Amino acid sequence: MSSRRTFIGQSILTAAASVALPLAGKSASLFSEKENYFGADFPIGVAGYTFAKFDVDQSIAMMKRVGITYLSVKEIHLPLNSSEEKIKSTIGKYTAAGINVYTVGVIYMRSKEAVDQAFEYAKKVGVNMIVGVPSYDLIDYCEEKVKAYDMRLAIHNHGPKDPLYPSPGDVYGRIKDKDSRLGLCIDIGHTVRAGVLPEKAVREFKDRLFDLHIKDVTIAAEEGKAIEIGRGVINFPELIKSLKKIQYKGVCSIEFEKDMTDPLPGIAESTGYFRAVLAAG
Amino acid sequence: MSSRRTFIGQSILTAAASVALPLAGKSASLFSEKENYFGADFPIGVAGYTFAKFDVDQSIAMMKRVGITYLSVKEIHLPLNSSEEKIKSTIGKYTAAGINVYTVGVIYMRSKEAVDQAFEYAKKVGVNMIVGVPSYDLIDYCEEKVKAYDMRLAIHNHGPKDPLYPSPGDVYGRIKDKDSRLGLCIDIGHTVRAGVLPEKAVREFKDRLFDLHIKDVTIAAEEGKAIEIGRGVINFPELIKSLKKIQYKGVCSIEFEKDMTDPLPGIAESTGYFRAVLAAG
Repeated sequence: MSSRRTFIGQSILTAAASVALPLAGKSASLFSEKENYFGADFPIGVAGYTFAKFDVDQSIAMMKRVGITYLSVKEIHLPLNSSEEKIKSTIGKYTAAGINVYTVGVIYMRSKEAVDQAFEYAKKVGVNMIVGVPSYDLIDYCEEKVKAYDMRLAIHNHGPKDPLYPSPGDVYGRIKDKDSRLGLCIDIGHTVRAGVLPEKAVREFKDRLFDLHIKDVTIAAEEGKAIEIGRGVINFPELIKSLKKIQYKGVCSIEFEKDMTDPLPGIAESTGYFRAVLAAG
Repeated sequence: MSSRRTFIGQSILTAAASVALPLAGKSASLFSEKENYFGADFPIGVAGYTFAKFDVDQSIAMMKRVGITYLSVKEIHLPLNSSEEKIKSTIGKYTAAGINVYTVGVIYMRSKEAVDQAFEYAKKVGVNMIVGVPSYDLIDYCEEKVKAYDMRLAIHNHGPKDPLYPSPGDVYGRIKDKDSRLGLCIDIGHTVRAGVLPEKAVREFKDRLFDLHIKDVTIAAEEGKAIEIGRGVINFPELIKSLKKIQYKGVCSIEFEKDMTDPLPGIAESTGYFRAVLAAG
């Protein structure tokens, strides 16, 4: 990456930077689509829960501000029972803003009907992956669904108090012998709170790692609180080293759960920190 | 630095992080004073011009949000002709908020009276350095002043259109044989716009490098515009490598001149990026 940032390469960079890109829409961001990847195969995204207190237009404005173009849509912004028309208009807003809706979730599935709804919803949204939390007794049914829809289900871990999937290993143990479209969305904050190193977990479960929720936490214990990336205890250089080693091809979606009524500064600080580590890695 | 971020060292880190620090005031920042340095001898600050559209209280709120505790006060927030009472009350606000006012400026000096005023002002503020721009014919007078006040003057470069000091070399050439309290505040954005690599300039002028204004620019040419750190053409890993090599002991003050009516997200993104490069360096 450092070779990109030489004075010699600068005229090329400058030329690229001045070109408006399809994904970037009308954003004033300097990033080309390639640059958004910052030398890695994985772009930065946002997990929709970050914008829980804001509507779709406000979410888009914040994403444009930080130059992030990948989004995991949460049902807060597009209810699971939305009409096709509603789905079309909401997704259309994101697309028009240059935002790539790459998955939906986190969706909790506690009944067959909820599983049915989630897969139909994802299909209508037009994504090929759901981030979800199925009850144990629904995993076999989910396996049928991932086959029928040819869609991936990334199961999300939620830390020490999660009765189902406290850590990534609790997901992996239940899906490793099933269809390869069942996998993990590793939430690195909840992973650390469960006493597991994210940089180790992504290597250990690499064959089923579909998505990542990135964040930082104050301490590596149940009571760890959300904090800007770089201020907490997670070792981002090591995490990114692991992701590059396993040739991760998914998205790293920032899920910022501090200052939820005014999250933009924290999202921005987190984005800056993560980008610098990506660029250095 | 990476050794800090191991799981083994975590309990120590956690203990340190939970201690409220004098400089951090009531901020919820996780940084200890040491951590603000991120393994380097130089902390991150803000150049007051960044807050040109805001008052002192608003500036403080933004600095607390990003956990920055060093400030170069600009006369917008504390006029040069302020009474001692006014100076005391304004500086008192910063101090109460855990902010360390380490210098004043940029102050333009076009007459002996302006030089007199600047040094008296700095003395009353209680700093030992002025960031300023004296006309050529006032440099000798400034030399008398730095001796009389035992105070440093860091002369600021302002890029291709600056009639006096376009690049750091234009400052250095005029002060290198004078009292060692005359030196440079290298503005890395204007330096790049003048076609000079900041990582080279800080090494070349290390014996007189007193202060830094850090920022990024879209292109390395006169028309380069301010942009969030990490999005532009400046090579921050190389800059920080140079600063560590010369054992820089000053402050790296973010001067963010984009989105000046709503700068916090850009300040935050810039801070996150710079911190990550510092931590990696």
